[in-house]
Amino acid sequence: MRVHPRTRVAQESIFARMSRLAQEKGAVNLGQGFPSEPPPAFLLEAAGRALGRYDQYAPPAGHPRLREALAEEYGVEPEEVVVTSGATEAIHALLQTLVGPGDEVIVLEPFFDVYLPDAALAGAEARLVRLDLDEGGFRLDPKRLQEAVTPRTRLLLLNTPMNPAGLVFPEKTLEAIARLAQKHDLLIVSDEVYEELAFVPFPRMRAFAPERTFTVGSAGKRLEATGWRVGWIVGPKEVMPTLAGMRQWTSFCAPTPLQVAVAEGLKVARREGFYEALRSKYRARRDLLYGGLSALEFKAFLPEGTYFLMARLPHSAQDLLEAGVAAIPGEAFYREDPPEGLLRFAFCKKEEELHLALERLSRLREERGAW
Amino acid sequence: MRVHPRTRVAQESIFARMSRLAQEKGAVNLGQGFPSEPPPAFLLEAAGRALGRYDQYAPPAGHPRLREALAEEYGVEPEEVVVTSGATEAIHALLQTLVGPGDEVIVLEPFFDVYLPDAALAGAEARLVRLDLDEGGFRLDPKRLQEAVTPRTRLLLLNTPMNPAGLVFPEKTLEAIARLAQKHDLLIVSDEVYEELAFVPFPRMRAFAPERTFTVGSAGKRLEATGWRVGWIVGPKEVMPTLAGMRQWTSFCAPTPLQVAVAEGLKVARREGFYEALRSKYRARRDLLYGGLSALEFKAFLPEGTYFLMARLPHSAQDLLEAGVAAIPGEAFYREDPPEGLLRFAFCKKEEELHLALERLSRLREERGAW
Ligand SMILES: Cc1ncc(COP(=O)(O)O)c(C=O)c1O
Ligand SMILES: Cc1ncc(COP(=O)(O)O)c(C=O)c1O
Repeated sequence: MRVHPRTRVAQESIFARMSRLAQEKGAVNLGQGFPSEPPPAFLLEAAGRALGRYDQYAPPAGHPRLREALAEEYGVEPEEVVVTSGATEAIHALLQTLVGPGDEVIVLEPFFDVYLPDAALAGAEARLVRLDLDEGGFRLDPKRLQEAVTPRTRLLLLNTPMNPAGLVFPEKTLEAIARLAQKHDLLIVSDEVYEELAFVPFPRMRAFAPERTFTVGSAGKRLEATGWRVGWIVGPKEVMPTLAGMRQWTSFCAPTPLQVAVAEGLKVARREGFYEALRSKYRARRDLLYGGLSALEFKAFLPEGTYFLMARLPHSAQDLLEAGVAAIPGEAFYREDPPEGLLRFAFCKKEEELHLALERLSRLREERGAW
Repeated sequence: MRVHPRTRVAQESIFARMSRLAQEKGAVNLGQGFPSEPPPAFLLEAAGRALGRYDQYAPPAGHPRLREALAEEYGVEPEEVVVTSGATEAIHALLQTLVGPGDEVIVLEPFFDVYLPDAALAGAEARLVRLDLDEGGFRLDPKRLQEAVTPRTRLLLLNTPMNPAGLVFPEKTLEAIARLAQKHDLLIVSDEVYEELAFVPFPRMRAFAPERTFTVGSAGKRLEATGWRVGWIVGPKEVMPTLAGMRQWTSFCAPTPLQVAVAEGLKVARREGFYEALRSKYRARRDLLYGGLSALEFKAFLPEGTYFLMARLPHSAQDLLEAGVAAIPGEAFYREDPPEGLLRFAFCKKEEELHLALERLSRLREERGAW
């Protein structure tokens, strides 16, 4: 059956594929970024209360309770918030709304996988700015951003804390980006779904250019419920009705009972220090994985944020899968010429899973050697 | 801020708008099609069990349990099913996948509102085929379909039971449509979200042209949980991975715990005669509303399916809203030149709400007169 050429972006994502293979092969799944533990009890209880009371359509812009809770979180008005079916829909709606054929979108490389298909579906061209990578890890040279701007550049797509590079951009970098954007009248989409998973101070992009920045967030990431499909956009008030109007055609509204539960969960999380606990849990797991990989003489890069860690191994993702560990091959995050031997490991997994993965990698190393 | 011209489809939908106005004015909301009662207890209980166990990403094609449950419902294989974030996302993904600029899509008029923006977003042209409307109600003359086919026609978008016209297309009509589609090599999207809400025998489109028909369904409609955002597509196996690959960029997956709950709910509903009870509940409410409107000498059209009823009133939706009743103006379902005085009333509301609406309409009639 003939399908439209735009479906060339319709390949199974590497994340979905690795999860499927991990399950088929009984591998420890350090591939796709979802926690192997359930969401916090307070969130589940809130959902239990919402079910049977909030089961019908919510407004496309979001349930009023969630818009209000998010407005409080971000220090904005509810009219500056639109709720989406996950950050995935937020990014899709933003690109559909803000760019089209003839426009260029600057994307940092390595990138999270949705950015390129979303730009392509909007008819825009992605202009990649590659981070430097050396023994010290990933680094963004803001000069590279400047060089990438052309008269057609319309939007700069940022991700901080950055998946998969693990960087958290400091104020200085965000200031430089804001100046660049102001000078060339660029819009900024700042994907901050890992905002509560920064192990160093985390500044928000919108603090430096609120008039042109759209912040993307995800309850899935900060409340450990990736399957709930509740995300959001915070941005300049005058564009929010249009964003709501666009996202209504993709899923009409985000799941109502889960929106209401997240509204409550956000407040409890803040009040009870949930995020501090989350960060210290993941800091420990990051250190466990980083230490383990380093002890095996694999070159691991310590992330400043996210629950991902990049490492260079002399083994392919396929080798690892056969050894019983699923990780994402570095190629997934590059359009072409990826650095050799990069793999992304998710450490939002149980400690015993991380231990098991390290054991299996240790066996692989014994059998196949280090570098 | 400059937005892309494609956002001309981003207006607030009339359904969202009327729900908002109904709430603001304290009107009985017979506008948007969502039940005012909660989903059945068995479904809520299933969701309660799924929460805390199925909270992370599902595969974009759907949780295996739900694909299997749907395969059983439709007598197909799980590979012929893709789960979506509501029927809304299903229709969006189908049009994005199957049509593009240069293609024409035949749409019956009056239409459900998403069809036109979805066709426009895919770059295709909607060619409207208007149902006849006289004292006897709406009628589709299949000859009109034949006349609408051009060399550029690619897809025929059907809706049965039909919102808002209330028609259920009989086998004879579906056979004629199948022949037409086969002759001109057209694809068929059959939106059957109200399949369990037919008050006359309901034949499925796919029975007559399984090789070219994509059936769209919605747990929201048949299990009374419109806010849960679980829908699906059943169609030819070879295109389903592409559909899954396209819908992954709009919301990645449908809400996992609700998918798992729906998988269980579908089985219980079938086993325990839930749909028979649903139909008899809504048949009674339909008759109540139809009888009430007719007694007020308003011209109501008895629907064969859906939970909507169209009627002709000498008062506008605005008049009704001021009288405390929200209904959808007929214009919402026509691109231009709508028949005069049409209003759509949803009867998926509590009996007391229907009584209250009728009382208010009676008062309006006394004050302002009938025709
Ligand atoms: C950087 C980034 N943005 C967005 C998303 C998608 O988030 P959601 O699950 O809320 O759609 C992810 C998921 O991994 C991500 O890593
Ligand atoms: C004919 C029709 N199709 C699709 C939908 C959307 O269904 P869902 O809520 O599953 O997105 C509706 C909702 O009213 C409808 O009436």
